Amino acid sequence: MIRTKIISVGDEILIGQIVNTNAAFLGQRFFAAGMPVERTVVISDSESAMLSEFADSVNEFDITVITGGLGPTHDDITKPALVKFFGDELVTDQKVLSHVKRFFAERKIVMPEVNEGQALVPANSEVIWNNNGTAPGIWIESAGRVFVALPGVPYEMKPMIDEQVIPKLKEKFSSKTGKTFLQKTILTTGIGESSLFEKFGNIDELLGGCRMAFLPSATGVRLRINAEAENEQEASDMIESVKQKINLYAGEYVFGEEEETLELVVGLLLRERKATLSLAESCTGGEISSKIVSVAGSSDYYLGGVCTYSNEAKVNIIGVQDSTLEKHGAVSIQTAVEMASGARRLFGSDYALSTTGIAGPAGATASKPVGLVCIGFSSAEKEYALEFSFGNRRDINIDRASQRALEILRRELLKIRIIF
Amino acid sequence: MIRTKIISVGDEILIGQIVNTNAAFLGQRFFAAGMPVERTVVISDSESAMLSEFADSVNEFDITVITGGLGPTHDDITKPALVKFFGDELVTDQKVLSHVKRFFAERKIVMPEVNEGQALVPANSEVIWNNNGTAPGIWIESAGRVFVALPGVPYEMKPMIDEQVIPKLKEKFSSKTGKTFLQKTILTTGIGESSLFEKFGNIDELLGGCRMAFLPSATGVRLRINAEAENEQEASDMIESVKQKINLYAGEYVFGEEEETLELVVGLLLRERKATLSLAESCTGGEISSKIVSVAGSSDYYLGGVCTYSNEAKVNIIGVQDSTLEKHGAVSIQTAVEMASGARRLFGSDYALSTTGIAGPAGATASKPVGLVCIGFSSAEKEYALEFSFGNRRDINIDRASQRALEILRRELLKIRIIF
Repeated sequence: MIRTKIISVGDEILIGQIVNTNAAFLGQRFFAAGMPVERTVVISDSESAMLSEFADSVNEFDITVITGGLGPTHDDITKPALVKFFGDELVTDQKVLSHVKRFFAERKIVMPEVNEGQALVPANSEVIWNNNGTAPGIWIESAGRVFVALPGVPYEMKPMIDEQVIPKLKEKFSSKTGKTFLQKTILTTGIGESSLFEKFGNIDELLGGCRMAFLPSATGVRLRINAEAENEQEASDMIESVKQKINLYAGEYVFGEEEETLELVVGLLLRERKATLSLAESCTGGEISSKIVSVAGSSDYYLGGVCTYSNEAKVNIIGVQDSTLEKHGAVSIQTAVEMASGARRLFGSDYALSTTGIAGPAGATASKPVGLVCIGFSSAEKEYALEFSFGNRRDINIDRASQRALEILRRELLKIRIIF
Repeated sequence: MIRTKIISVGDEILIGQIVNTNAAFLGQRFFAAGMPVERTVVISDSESAMLSEFADSVNEFDITVITGGLGPTHDDITKPALVKFFGDELVTDQKVLSHVKRFFAERKIVMPEVNEGQALVPANSEVIWNNNGTAPGIWIESAGRVFVALPGVPYEMKPMIDEQVIPKLKEKFSSKTGKTFLQKTILTTGIGESSLFEKFGNIDELLGGCRMAFLPSATGVRLRINAEAENEQEASDMIESVKQKINLYAGEYVFGEEEETLELVVGLLLRERKATLSLAESCTGGEISSKIVSVAGSSDYYLGGVCTYSNEAKVNIIGVQDSTLEKHGAVSIQTAVEMASGARRLFGSDYALSTTGIAGPAGATASKPVGLVCIGFSSAEKEYALEFSFGNRRDINIDRASQRALEILRRELLKIRIIF
């Protein structure tokens, strides 16, 4: 197994001024290339921190990718630290110097003198060309270990990785990367992490040699399956087998794979059926509508929605009966049904969903606590509403109510039992 | 100087499936508290990697914060690794067990047995309470070093840091942090990073010894100001002086501070004026509505909104004239004005906003490109709409149109000139 490590250099990452998206990009690319990242370290622009990381790399890792600290100013110390560590020296690379000069000339900018320093590279290194900037990448090999230093600017670094670094590493380590790695993520909603875990029974049997991670969020649990095998076919079969077992034990909760969203999946189902949707939202306040509209092309099936945040709007616009509000209250199964029904009539859609609840923190009564949400459904065949108890946090209640409403629609469209 | 380190646990971060936003959050919070993070490490759910990081922490760092690996399933190994490292044992904490049981009971879910394990904590530790989930945080002190283990789910971890961990650490290390660090973030919208920079003139003069970072996003530029001084008063004065200068040069673009959102600020202004708002959204699809409703107590001033995603809905529900749609099209100044006007009548509100545009990727024509958005405003005194050209990305167009609509309302409420 090839062992890969990333060193991200920069105070701006450590103090949270920027999020380390470079490391995420590198993680994806190296994983896909069968050289998964085992360790990522973020350090400041400090020589001692860098030297100690280099020492750790030489001891433990086949590949070390360093991003950042390659610019032309005084606080960019990756190159000096590399030559110090390897007992090398910096020399001017004439081809890089012409590239840097041409870069400025093409942009009709006088080159600041400090940029001449960008043509300095370690004597015992190869250059990784930077077609989108002036800082060259550096490739150093020492005792079978590879160190690659790249600029931290994402649009400079990314093509250097894809076009030069990964192919070069694959070639160098071809004999060591015998195995094939595959990954699949299965998306579930409507069931908690631990209930899902229990449904799976004997987890080792289910996995049959794959690895699986449970990744919970407020709106569902993602299952990431990893397979490692001699060849692609074998890895793919291993994953397919896990997928089938997941579907056998908990298929009704599975709504998609990889980066799919529930609103995307529901949209595809509506489009397939040439059906249309409308909404009447109260406690979710437009969140379901905005999720549906976030999907390109949603105007094919989404007619629109009403956010009836006041009782007057519920009565005047969507047609909830005054008597219903008086007798049962705005947060009730009855009001939710009348809202869904009213939206379906108002927009003339095939399906309608509604939400009414107490998102919090205010608005609770003895019988109606924060987190109580009623979700209504209406179609030509049936109308009903379900009551849910979510939690204490307003934002999460809104998220969970939105996701649950979409899940009710998904189950109705697929004729799966409605039970949570 | 207090030395702080973060250990983020999880394959999903290493392989780039999720971006390490937790580390960015922690970086910000610890920087603001005067205990800046010196090193962040991402490792997999592997005991040996964890033990070797703990050894490094004990040697070098005052504070080690570990996120992730605290859930109830087989791949969550932070707690076992901690007790192994410190030669401790896991014992059931009865208070945590009741909390976990109550958590399920309140949600009317039968607690899966595996969750009993969440009440296991190291014997020599204190519990950091998790009010938004079932996995408790763990606080361990050993030879003057502090280890804090927290769940990786952001909405569980973040309040634990702000409400419990940072205050507890500040108390413990108060004697070691000699200097006072203060930070303030000023929020602007409606002006770009470089235009803002130019308005400030001589930046060193403006800063008077403070540091400032420009943090641009699609919807505005945040200005983060940092002061370091002998005492709180001095640091606070330094920041106040910068704030005054920013307001002098670019005050009309400043809408708030710290974590305030534009929807929160607009809500406060509406409440002060006892005024009400309604919406008619097309291209933003409910995004403005959901932003407004995300603010607790928004039912005091928000009556509701309509998402008129089809032309029929624009005509039938909100009262746009058929002839307007025919002559000018759905994406036009005229339609935007009639939508805002119609919403104000329908809901009986004091103010109304509307949006209609081409969010993309489809829907463009020769004269109406992707990114064209018309935003309408209506009050008893005036009705108008403005045309904007945003970019090519659907999600960003929706964000920017939503933010701009709210900014128009803010300026109207404060009687600031409407110019962008």
